[in-house]
Amino acid sequence: MVNSRDVAIEAGVSQATVSRVLSGSQTVSEQTRARVLAAMAHTGYQPNYAARAMRTNRTRTIGVVVANILNPFYPALIAAASRELNRLDYRMILWESEFGGEQSATEAIAQRQVDGVLFTSATAESAPLAAAVGSGAPTALINRIVPNLPCDQVDSNNNATSFDIATYFAAAGHERVGLITADRRASTARLREDGFRAGVKASRLSMPATLVKNGDFTHEGGQRAFKALMATKGSAPTAVFCVNDLSALGAIDAAKSVGLRVPEDLWVVGYDDIDMASWESNSLTTARQPIESMVTLALETLLERIGDPALPFRHYQFATSMQVRQSTACEPFIHTTSSSPQPSILREWTA
Amino acid sequence: MVNSRDVAIEAGVSQATVSRVLSGSQTVSEQTRARVLAAMAHTGYQPNYAARAMRTNRTRTIGVVVANILNPFYPALIAAASRELNRLDYRMILWESEFGGEQSATEAIAQRQVDGVLFTSATAESAPLAAAVGSGAPTALINRIVPNLPCDQVDSNNNATSFDIATYFAAAGHERVGLITADRRASTARLREDGFRAGVKASRLSMPATLVKNGDFTHEGGQRAFKALMATKGSAPTAVFCVNDLSALGAIDAAKSVGLRVPEDLWVVGYDDIDMASWESNSLTTARQPIESMVTLALETLLERIGDPALPFRHYQFATSMQVRQSTACEPFIHTTSSSPQPSILREWTA
Repeated sequence: MVNSRDVAIEAGVSQATVSRVLSGSQTVSEQTRARVLAAMAHTGYQPNYAARAMRTNRTRTIGVVVANILNPFYPALIAAASRELNRLDYRMILWESEFGGEQSATEAIAQRQVDGVLFTSATAESAPLAAAVGSGAPTALINRIVPNLPCDQVDSNNNATSFDIATYFAAAGHERVGLITADRRASTARLREDGFRAGVKASRLSMPATLVKNGDFTHEGGQRAFKALMATKGSAPTAVFCVNDLSALGAIDAAKSVGLRVPEDLWVVGYDDIDMASWESNSLTTARQPIESMVTLALETLLERIGDPALPFRHYQFATSMQVRQSTACEPFIHTTSSSPQPSILREWTA
Repeated sequence: MVNSRDVAIEAGVSQATVSRVLSGSQTVSEQTRARVLAAMAHTGYQPNYAARAMRTNRTRTIGVVVANILNPFYPALIAAASRELNRLDYRMILWESEFGGEQSATEAIAQRQVDGVLFTSATAESAPLAAAVGSGAPTALINRIVPNLPCDQVDSNNNATSFDIATYFAAAGHERVGLITADRRASTARLREDGFRAGVKASRLSMPATLVKNGDFTHEGGQRAFKALMATKGSAPTAVFCVNDLSALGAIDAAKSVGLRVPEDLWVVGYDDIDMASWESNSLTTARQPIESMVTLALETLLERIGDPALPFRHYQFATSMQVRQSTACEPFIHTTSSSPQPSILREWTA
């Protein structure tokens, strides 16, 4: 393998000069720099990655932390991040926090293996998140946010969208509705649940506590939650909002298995618009998160922060767009807040 | 931040001694080593990653190359790899070769950013695969293989399983069958297609060329392929084998949209057993690849090779197990080859 000594000989300069060119030092004349670069090209020299990372204190690698890659929402997010980082000539390290990746992520952040970290499913309790923010590593949250945490955050208007879903149920004549939610430590579950509850109240819908169950964001959990919800005393709901698509598809499976027809007997609405929500066999009405735009903005913000750590922190919020499909009878869906694809800056602050 | 100089002062040794301990040198006495390690623990020293990578020429990072993370088979594989690498105290870098990750992967391999590479969806034409094998980087293929390539390879018995699926159709009285395949550069498509064709011939089933279509391994492709297959002249098939689950689910959607009942009018069989194949709404009969065992063995083999590059190359093959569900009427499925969960070594060779 060609090393920097070979380059130095080829260029007729010292090895120290080659190092200065590699580190972008300003003390090398343009003429010498050109000679060294030509020698690198000619010898096929590849700067050693670890050596470059030591010199520049940059790895050009972004860590991405994901909670559960088995939920198809996250592969779509990762695919978008991978495409965008590649375009920007950055590498991606992926950690799965469900399967013990938390420790790896925490160490890698402390050891500066990455220039910045993107958290896709953060909660306030996350150890790698605390490590990242505590060590001052450039950090951005996407999808799930943690209020007041000193880092950049990007989400969708979970609360307003979920409020509108309750209004949509009421406008179509539903009176008794159900909710399949998830762990409230996830801002997505918390904000969607709170928004839907506020909409239920504003529209004077009936939703007793027995019609609110935890579906764990999973297909299996959605199935289990729907069964539990139907097993409670009192009349059944005629419309159910599930805080993500995967649990909504589980709820539909459970409903069909007890002979309910969707949407004739039961309306079901999800959140995310994962690929399979639009498959004919599922045809799920759902709130679409503009995931590609969200990823692009989150990474852009993260790279800006790597360049300038003193920038104020920003919380960007994107509007969703409702995809009305066969799991609800087609009624007009009215967004009460903007559904413009442009994000708004909700808040800007410094630590 | 604590550096190695602080550790040296705390331990009462030279900085060179601290470096020797970090690099695992044998020239340090056990007593001195213990003193340095205690000083590291006491000062909270974290060895710098880039510095360690330069010293040891090891990054403890494995690159994973995936073609299409939007096919749920790959997230399941990545989750298994993530869990296993974490257990072994390795990090994972993920490249998406669909979205331009090929260039990143090729560079990262050349620049020794990773100790080894696991390819999940290799084809003989892959540039990063050529870079990895050409540069002598430890390399393993999982799921898709490339015959005669000097690297370790792990797959399932694609050919035998697909042969058995044709036999299963024949035993149930089907006479005219169809095949939804994919790009033959992928060994999975090629071996499954060839195995199924051999089974069709052996069982004297009818499968004219018009009943073989390309479904691109995707839901949309499966849908399109099924529609094309039904649009051909002559009578329709009563059973279709799709070379993966995602295209099988697409074929089922297309069949239902033209009023066909599954399994009454049409049997459909897939390959992989992705999570959603077992959902009640899908209930797809499919060949289960033991993905966790395959990943564990592939990574074990890759780490062995990192330790000893001179080991002979091995091709391991796992048997599948058939999951008979509602997309076929329940008939006994007979595996003609072993369905033992233990892999067999198909071949062992040196370059």
